[in-house]
Amino acid sequence: MKPCFILVRPQMAENIGTAARAMMNCCIDEMRLVEPDYSPTCERAIATSSGAEEILYNAKVFNSVKDAIIDLQKVYATTGRTRDQVKPVFTGEGMAKDIAVQSKNNIKCGVMFGPERTGLENRDMDYADVIVRIPLNPKHTSLNLAQAVLLTGYEIFRLTDTTSETGMYTANQEMASKAELDHLFNKLENDLEANNYFKVPEKKPRMIRNLQNIFLRANLTSQDVRTLHGVFDYLNNKQ
Amino acid sequence: MKPCFILVRPQMAENIGTAARAMMNCCIDEMRLVEPDYSPTCERAIATSSGAEEILYNAKVFNSVKDAIIDLQKVYATTGRTRDQVKPVFTGEGMAKDIAVQSKNNIKCGVMFGPERTGLENRDMDYADVIVRIPLNPKHTSLNLAQAVLLTGYEIFRLTDTTSETGMYTANQEMASKAELDHLFNKLENDLEANNYFKVPEKKPRMIRNLQNIFLRANLTSQDVRTLHGVFDYLNNKQ
Repeated sequence: MKPCFILVRPQMAENIGTAARAMMNCCIDEMRLVEPDYSPTCERAIATSSGAEEILYNAKVFNSVKDAIIDLQKVYATTGRTRDQVKPVFTGEGMAKDIAVQSKNNIKCGVMFGPERTGLENRDMDYADVIVRIPLNPKHTSLNLAQAVLLTGYEIFRLTDTTSETGMYTANQEMASKAELDHLFNKLENDLEANNYFKVPEKKPRMIRNLQNIFLRANLTSQDVRTLHGVFDYLNNKQ
Repeated sequence: MKPCFILVRPQMAENIGTAARAMMNCCIDEMRLVEPDYSPTCERAIATSSGAEEILYNAKVFNSVKDAIIDLQKVYATTGRTRDQVKPVFTGEGMAKDIAVQSKNNIKCGVMFGPERTGLENRDMDYADVIVRIPLNPKHTSLNLAQAVLLTGYEIFRLTDTTSETGMYTANQEMASKAELDHLFNKLENDLEANNYFKVPEKKPRMIRNLQNIFLRANLTSQDVRTLHGVFDYLNNKQ
């Protein structure tokens, strides 16, 4: 169960559109709007949503924060500023983890975002169980609405994302086998030997090891090995 | 040592400004620009940077990607699209961790971002050691330039940020001591006893326990305890 995102009194149609785009980036589908200055389906919002118009067409508009959150069970309020209310404060990551726990227990959550100029006011925060403050440069925490939506949605998305942190894009090529590498290294050694590259015999093992390490670090594909065979042949005037 | 961010052929002055703003959010100071259509210090860029103009005034402009990266030792290229080149691919988190390792070893890194309309081209990717692909909704990975800069910078910032994921904002109030809570619970119990609230004696321990848990879950401050004393007194007509 995913949280809904609630934009409170957004002032610019463009920001409604770009917020929808950011929500779609992060697989957050449900947008709610409280007293927006523009309809979520106005031309400018649709244009700036860059393909996320589905979210805008499904967005619901409410006359008050209370109406927008009344069916929810837990409400988070994003703010860059400290409020004079005693409430739990979570980071974006803390919020994402908490929403995941609530969702497992079928507790319906919503995240509120304030108007562009002022942010959420105390009367809006009254409805929040938790304040969310995304850690950023303390000297420059100000985000525009779509960027606040993006970072918040990103924390929720990244918690469940399983993409490997590092990998190799091989353009559909196979990684070279150790047999192919061994063949390449032997050929290079023999060609260099034939061309009198190893002038000091005692240094030869170390020189070969260093050369091999260059190519091992390159994570060669089978195609790369074939390419290097050709390169060595041409350098060696065998073609 | 922090990485520099390199905007390659940015087309809109506004995006240079909002990218600077996003960089400042994430404590990334050094901006480089390759063949920008507008000067980083043009009026529109400064206006949209929302206070990050220092980054714009210090930004360096280059005539080619090669010139912009030539003093670096490791280059990361952000792209939402797969390129037909065999290169390592890291997530945003993978990139941030790798940059942290490189920085510890005094290796100077840079992260490239492509033009708004096309993204980085193959000729730009030629200079990259690593492709960075930030996992997002596979059906909607498209980000505008400033948002790509923000998510990339955020991953770098959040890696070293030490903010507690969850906490309590107490508005400068002390959390209540167990002695204060004990006093409050005793008073409530006595007042309820005097008002004949506990009609079935066997149920009394459980009822008291449930009431205590309501107030324990509320994480009361000392001020909250004083407030509740007053509330109970008023309800009890002692005032």
